[in-house]
Amino acid sequence: MGDKRSFYEQRTIEWDDKSNSIMMIDQTVLPNEFRIVRCSNVSEVIDAIKTMKIRGAPAIGVAGAMGLALSVIASTSSTKKKLLQEIEPDAIAIKSARPTAINLAWGVDKTAEFIQSELPEMNSNESKEKIVKFVKSLADADVNTNRKLSDQGAKLFRNGETVLTHCNAGSLATVGYGTALGVLRSVAKQGKTLKVFAAEARPVLQGARLTAYELANDGFDVTLISDTAIGASMQKGLIDRVVVGADRITKDGHVFNKVGTYQIATLAKRHRVPFYVAAPLSTFDFDADWKKVKIEERSPEEIKTIGGQHTAPESVKAFNPAFDVTPPELVTAIICEKGILARPFAPKIKRLKRKALKGLSGPVA
Amino acid sequence: MGDKRSFYEQRTIEWDDKSNSIMMIDQTVLPNEFRIVRCSNVSEVIDAIKTMKIRGAPAIGVAGAMGLALSVIASTSSTKKKLLQEIEPDAIAIKSARPTAINLAWGVDKTAEFIQSELPEMNSNESKEKIVKFVKSLADADVNTNRKLSDQGAKLFRNGETVLTHCNAGSLATVGYGTALGVLRSVAKQGKTLKVFAAEARPVLQGARLTAYELANDGFDVTLISDTAIGASMQKGLIDRVVVGADRITKDGHVFNKVGTYQIATLAKRHRVPFYVAAPLSTFDFDADWKKVKIEERSPEEIKTIGGQHTAPESVKAFNPAFDVTPPELVTAIICEKGILARPFAPKIKRLKRKALKGLSGPVA
Repeated sequence: MGDKRSFYEQRTIEWDDKSNSIMMIDQTVLPNEFRIVRCSNVSEVIDAIKTMKIRGAPAIGVAGAMGLALSVIASTSSTKKKLLQEIEPDAIAIKSARPTAINLAWGVDKTAEFIQSELPEMNSNESKEKIVKFVKSLADADVNTNRKLSDQGAKLFRNGETVLTHCNAGSLATVGYGTALGVLRSVAKQGKTLKVFAAEARPVLQGARLTAYELANDGFDVTLISDTAIGASMQKGLIDRVVVGADRITKDGHVFNKVGTYQIATLAKRHRVPFYVAAPLSTFDFDADWKKVKIEERSPEEIKTIGGQHTAPESVKAFNPAFDVTPPELVTAIICEKGILARPFAPKIKRLKRKALKGLSGPVA
Repeated sequence: MGDKRSFYEQRTIEWDDKSNSIMMIDQTVLPNEFRIVRCSNVSEVIDAIKTMKIRGAPAIGVAGAMGLALSVIASTSSTKKKLLQEIEPDAIAIKSARPTAINLAWGVDKTAEFIQSELPEMNSNESKEKIVKFVKSLADADVNTNRKLSDQGAKLFRNGETVLTHCNAGSLATVGYGTALGVLRSVAKQGKTLKVFAAEARPVLQGARLTAYELANDGFDVTLISDTAIGASMQKGLIDRVVVGADRITKDGHVFNKVGTYQIATLAKRHRVPFYVAAPLSTFDFDADWKKVKIEERSPEEIKTIGGQHTAPESVKAFNPAFDVTPPELVTAIICEKGILARPFAPKIKRLKRKALKGLSGPVA
């Protein structure tokens, strides 16, 4: 497990068949240490999500699904009905570990639906085998979806361009390959050379710690900037395009993503720099009103300390929203596995919803 | 020297008559430690400016002047003519310690002019006494100017408002009282209560380490935010006004200030939040074309490490501009000791220049 792993193939989260547990890369200690943590029960999974050992909307979606699978395996209920009653509190607890990324609820709900419709009425070893197979298929599907959306999004980029990204929408934010960074991987696969600017993304520094790390390991030309230098970089004409991931996209195209995204989109609009959002369908919230989406606020200590050292007096308060919302008028295009959506987004997202409900495939854009 | 000092009175830099040396607060170790450093010769002054033991445009202006005074005192030249030749390399070295803030050149040039016009032809103890008196008067004038501009700027604020500031344009950025934070002090003196949001200002964290510290010590209600949360704060309607300092204001009202200022101004415009710049006349560059002003780039290590620990792989590059430029159309008003300037700035700055050359006083706005 050297440091020079390729994130074209690396998986962030995997089911371990031997011990029926979940293995994940501990993202709190990167890039200084590459450590695998193991979760053997639901509370360990919830803790890993809350403390951001695993983070990124698609990654925590699969973590939530696998967490519920751990509940099923631990269950001694004799019938499916009892099993469903037994695991319900776990499902609720997982879904409320973090509130903003819809993928977490999506992963748990998908798994609960599968249990409801596909497991035998009598709980048995067969049930356990089926649920494991299902959550592993969700993990595989995530990688395939990311490759698909990335290959499509890659068409938007030209050889020699410099692309700004924010936070980490990479392999480490998904099961593998990544969304925004997946697109950059696919651009490279198509033989085009890019330069990447990564904003460090205070307070948790996912841009510095994760994006710079995984892109450098994959041979990209990466330049790190502070979150304050985005305007200065655009002023100097250093940025040709922006691509970010998303934690939730509402029916009218409002994009919830890592705090700082909205201000990048505002600057991109001012400098006429195209601003793309790359996310799978599991990130779309087809029903909610964007004004009602809860934006998680995290501990003030994330702002007031760095590496355990106080950077501000203890008496000072801190406001620490983890996400912000970018309105659709600032988004040039949304890249998903069904194609590239241009504005206006609402009618296209409506069509995506119909397709998602019917389980149909084919392009929507 | 407890931690609860009031920055209504505290001085950042002072001349010590006993030892003919300069004492300054070491701003690299705040807020965890309050330490005074002493500079006894020019190279110590240059080092203190370069390593940002002292920083802030007005503060380094006075540091530069006092640095040149140390040269005069150390000189063994018998005549003023020889003295001027001897100190010229020091003057050049001080002025090039940091390139963007014009106050540094202003402080050195003012001192050189004083030597030229006011010192006796034969270099003597009288020369040394006169130069010390002069640089001490510059320090006093800085505090008086800041109080004057702050008292005027304070009229723009209403009781109960929340004000965002960036970096540190406080007592610690000047000899005393501050510019942007001086304005907030004067608002408080007028009996109006404010809440202050401070952006932490990566990479050097002057907002967290200095602004939060000095405002908390003066009893302000301070909330620290990451630089990524400025858009989110404005989206939530939390910010009523913005006030920042400046490192250089050109003749047409382009404002060079700490990197990140431009993006705050862009967001303020979008959210119709008034954006003020508070700076003394010594920050105005009446002649230069804004496009030709050099923006200092500092070491990549400031971005790639925090508290000595690497936050990004060593192989990654970093782009680290210390300043950016905010165009006049994003600035609501400039607060200086001659009054409050509204747009268009160019004709008012032209009048300021005429007054500055004639040494006249009186309002210009």
